[in-house]
Amino acid sequence: MQFSSKIIEQAVETFAQLPGVGKKTALRYVLHLIKQNDTEQLAQIIRQLKTDLKFCSKCQNICESTVCDICSNPVRDQSLLCVVQDYRDVMAIENTGLYKGLYHVLGGLISPMEGVGPGHLNIDSLSARMEESKVKEVILALNATMEGETTSFYIYRKLAPYKVKLSAIARGIAVGDELEYTDEATLGRSIANRQPFSAFFSVE
Amino acid sequence: MQFSSKIIEQAVETFAQLPGVGKKTALRYVLHLIKQNDTEQLAQIIRQLKTDLKFCSKCQNICESTVCDICSNPVRDQSLLCVVQDYRDVMAIENTGLYKGLYHVLGGLISPMEGVGPGHLNIDSLSARMEESKVKEVILALNATMEGETTSFYIYRKLAPYKVKLSAIARGIAVGDELEYTDEATLGRSIANRQPFSAFFSVE
Repeated sequence: MQFSSKIIEQAVETFAQLPGVGKKTALRYVLHLIKQNDTEQLAQIIRQLKTDLKFCSKCQNICESTVCDICSNPVRDQSLLCVVQDYRDVMAIENTGLYKGLYHVLGGLISPMEGVGPGHLNIDSLSARMEESKVKEVILALNATMEGETTSFYIYRKLAPYKVKLSAIARGIAVGDELEYTDEATLGRSIANRQPFSAFFSVE
Repeated sequence: MQFSSKIIEQAVETFAQLPGVGKKTALRYVLHLIKQNDTEQLAQIIRQLKTDLKFCSKCQNICESTVCDICSNPVRDQSLLCVVQDYRDVMAIENTGLYKGLYHVLGGLISPMEGVGPGHLNIDSLSARMEESKVKEVILALNATMEGETTSFYIYRKLAPYKVKLSAIARGIAVGDELEYTDEATLGRSIANRQPFSAFFSVE
């Protein structure tokens, strides 16, 4: 792509660094912004992301103070800890309204292909939390992908010395799914991990 | 979507105003930026889009000075004027390397559905250019869509009083296309508007 203006070129290159954004999409954003009357709001909020947001010192979730609202909430069950990949997963689980424990945000998954090792993630601080706190159960809620399973297994080994119950969220067919179209691996696991029928009606 | 932080919520809403960006994509951008070390560049370039870019006083193209590089280039053919929708189309035509005339950027297309009338576009300034300048031919290079054809027809009527040749870019099958998969409207027009075979080898 050849641009008539250096500024447009720079802007396109900067926007194209956003995940999943190519040069064509970046140019679309840039032209939209040029037409806008007020782009100051966007520039301002981007600055604020850096200046006003912090990572919770306990769970590493994104928040506006030193300790996040969930960690500082005395009503939450301090004996339950749910390990998730990032902020989006915390949001997703919070939106179910069914989980009342605490979280631990890893900030990613182990992925040798992308050069992400255990050292890049908040796994050491997870061990540290085991030593300090009154956690009785750690729930691994990671993606059902190669990276997710690898990370789960790594944490499983890492937490073996501690006397905590370790569980993982259930794999099985999704609500609304039809058996016919479910892949074999999922269907196989959903049969192997079958649950008492009464469990479907009591959610805790 | 429920956010634990007001700033993330605001940022997501601001990013979701970009064209084609929903809240999920906006959140993806925001989380990416939070992880980045340096977001200042993006904030800075967004400000610059407003402060340093202008619209060319002649053709309304986006540029860094009062008159754009194309309009101020004495080598360009001043008798040819190509009417396009926006900056991207100028880029696309410039990239062909086959057009040496000037441009006129409308800034959009007539679209009653989206509330865009002729008054919102740079059409009056096009008439003004007809009166002043030595334009001999106006080439309509607008999208082959309902909006594009409507706008072309409106300009055709608007320029009728002026003694300029009015042409439109050729409709036909794209280079590399197979007849079998070409829609009937395009194929029909490509037969009706057939060209001397020799025209394929002389490009001017």
